[in-house]
Amino acid sequence: MNLDLEWLHAPAAAVDLDAREAAISRQGELTKPLGSLGRLEDIAIQLAALQGREQPALGQVQIAVFAADHGVAASGVSAFPQAVTAQMVANMASGGAAISVLAREIGAGIELINLGTVAPVPAHPLIRDAVIDAGSANLAEGPAMSAEQLALALAEGKAAVQRARAAGAELFIAGEMGIGNTTPATALACALLALPVVELVGPGTGLDRSGIERKRALIERALTLHRDQLGDQPGNLPGNLPGGLPGNQLGDPLADPLSALARLGGFEIAAMAGAYVACAQQGLPMLVDGFISTAAALVASRLCPGAVDWMLLAHASAEPGHRAMVEAIGLRPLLDLGMRLGEGSGAAAAVPLLRLACALHAQMATFAEAGVAAQAS
Amino acid sequence: MNLDLEWLHAPAAAVDLDAREAAISRQGELTKPLGSLGRLEDIAIQLAALQGREQPALGQVQIAVFAADHGVAASGVSAFPQAVTAQMVANMASGGAAISVLAREIGAGIELINLGTVAPVPAHPLIRDAVIDAGSANLAEGPAMSAEQLALALAEGKAAVQRARAAGAELFIAGEMGIGNTTPATALACALLALPVVELVGPGTGLDRSGIERKRALIERALTLHRDQLGDQPGNLPGNLPGGLPGNQLGDPLADPLSALARLGGFEIAAMAGAYVACAQQGLPMLVDGFISTAAALVASRLCPGAVDWMLLAHASAEPGHRAMVEAIGLRPLLDLGMRLGEGSGAAAAVPLLRLACALHAQMATFAEAGVAAQAS
Repeated sequence: MNLDLEWLHAPAAAVDLDAREAAISRQGELTKPLGSLGRLEDIAIQLAALQGREQPALGQVQIAVFAADHGVAASGVSAFPQAVTAQMVANMASGGAAISVLAREIGAGIELINLGTVAPVPAHPLIRDAVIDAGSANLAEGPAMSAEQLALALAEGKAAVQRARAAGAELFIAGEMGIGNTTPATALACALLALPVVELVGPGTGLDRSGIERKRALIERALTLHRDQLGDQPGNLPGNLPGGLPGNQLGDPLADPLSALARLGGFEIAAMAGAYVACAQQGLPMLVDGFISTAAALVASRLCPGAVDWMLLAHASAEPGHRAMVEAIGLRPLLDLGMRLGEGSGAAAAVPLLRLACALHAQMATFAEAGVAAQAS
Repeated sequence: MNLDLEWLHAPAAAVDLDAREAAISRQGELTKPLGSLGRLEDIAIQLAALQGREQPALGQVQIAVFAADHGVAASGVSAFPQAVTAQMVANMASGGAAISVLAREIGAGIELINLGTVAPVPAHPLIRDAVIDAGSANLAEGPAMSAEQLALALAEGKAAVQRARAAGAELFIAGEMGIGNTTPATALACALLALPVVELVGPGTGLDRSGIERKRALIERALTLHRDQLGDQPGNLPGNLPGGLPGNQLGDPLADPLSALARLGGFEIAAMAGAYVACAQQGLPMLVDGFISTAAALVASRLCPGAVDWMLLAHASAEPGHRAMVEAIGLRPLLDLGMRLGEGSGAAAAVPLLRLACALHAQMATFAEAGVAAQAS
């Protein structure tokens, strides 16, 4: 695997504006008041632009769940022990996790990419062994990962997209599993949006008030540490790899997305960011899930601004920092069901709506076909 | 058909509190943080209570679309001509309408009940001829329907529920088609909630500002007319049928739900209200659609307070009066996609989410089964 970051700088694929116009025009001819299907109309139009055809369809959907542990979990930022990451990967493989059930029900392909956990993950045909290390380092003490680890994680995301495309996927969903990972995701959001931690921090999978307070203080200390470059090992940051901007030597080392990702992220978040950039570059529509996924999408949108065109956002997270990220990227969630599980579950739950949007767009009669009066009386 | 209203006074079926407790307990054992599936957990628990089993399922779903015209449409309260009601019923039967596509995609049964339109509706195996009159009378000039017409419409709703149950339905969706029917629905909401018209009136399927203003003035005049009983034909109101309260002779004739329904409603709204009461009485869960459906659900909840237990609400309507009705009934929409089409389309779009909620509840592994640590670290 080539340890460079240069591939990240390729632009997003262009969307098909002719197909978009044709889809908009078709929506105006279908037997309903214009706009009365709301966002189901928008979805059909966006997918038409992305798939380059007036009548889009979503047959094959591919879900890639990226799993990794986080050194910062040792600081007590999660309600669950770290061993649960590996246990849940096994549960996903054997079909008992939420994302396993959802993938089956919507007929999606699923693979689990093990980027490195504290406890061992069993071998299983659905689990890809892509271990980088037994979890990332504690972001409260120094960079979460080295430049080489960052490049490996990003490349794993890109490789998952290539496999999805080879399998004929028309929609890509990235999910994640990593005990403690709302902490790196919140830290990344604070760094890239330059917002105070207290505005974005939340309970994750179930912290109480004192737990949230501990998480806030920890993230604040971590951001100071990285801005002052106190925990750095010289020569071990993205600026030292081909394609990595040497931005971390200049000004705020958290303002550069790659530098912030290496310092504050985790292997699964980096892999998702790489996958999102690859989706946009390769022209594969992606359905972004919830809080962790949106942090990765925020990084991807900074690395590759055109990536946003290829994103749909499935679910508004119950986590308070989600909305700020969503608005910064320029997305709007389809669902708001109070879900806060991750795994890609919010995205999988939204797939039937996307398919219904395509079916309505393709199968509804036009006013002319049905002999229905379109004009106002 | 028995022309009485006495059947409306039977209570709602009891929900199964043991099944509810068992479902709540199961949700606590599944391999996810408690509550992290948000409203998908609530749905599974509610359906368990309604279906009387720890693990509910939604196989057969039945959609009944009630169609009728409205005399008030002659007053220019819709962007579409009245002939469109019958045209759209034909379009639904031949498979080109939004609800036709949605019913096919979710595998639901569908029937169209023609309660009376201005233009003729063609014969078709999916269309049930239940014509009461060529549309209801203009609510701005007098009662929209007679006591006998009200009883017929309510009974048609009940009969549709009986057919759905006979077909093995586990969920009932009422849809509607009737040009101009946001006007009677808004008038009913204003009457039963005692709220000013200006707070609830909206554009329906596409009125502009002056159209909305005309609609507001018309509904205000109509409410005054009915409160003063100026347009009444003696002996032709629900108080004169067995089971109808003689409330319209006492105080505000719009405070009694049956009297308000006869004066301000339409045949399809009355049929939906009858269907909702029958669903609750017969223990069939119902998924309420949008604005018109919610007005009928509001009437049903006043006629049969226990009916609310058997209701799920699919979609927040873009119509401004929807929220007040929803809050008065005590429901919460699952979706908010800006839909404002009616036909039952918002409900049909939500069915996959209900099925996913059931699948997650039934198929996810428990912590014990999966060997995943449930305790906090």
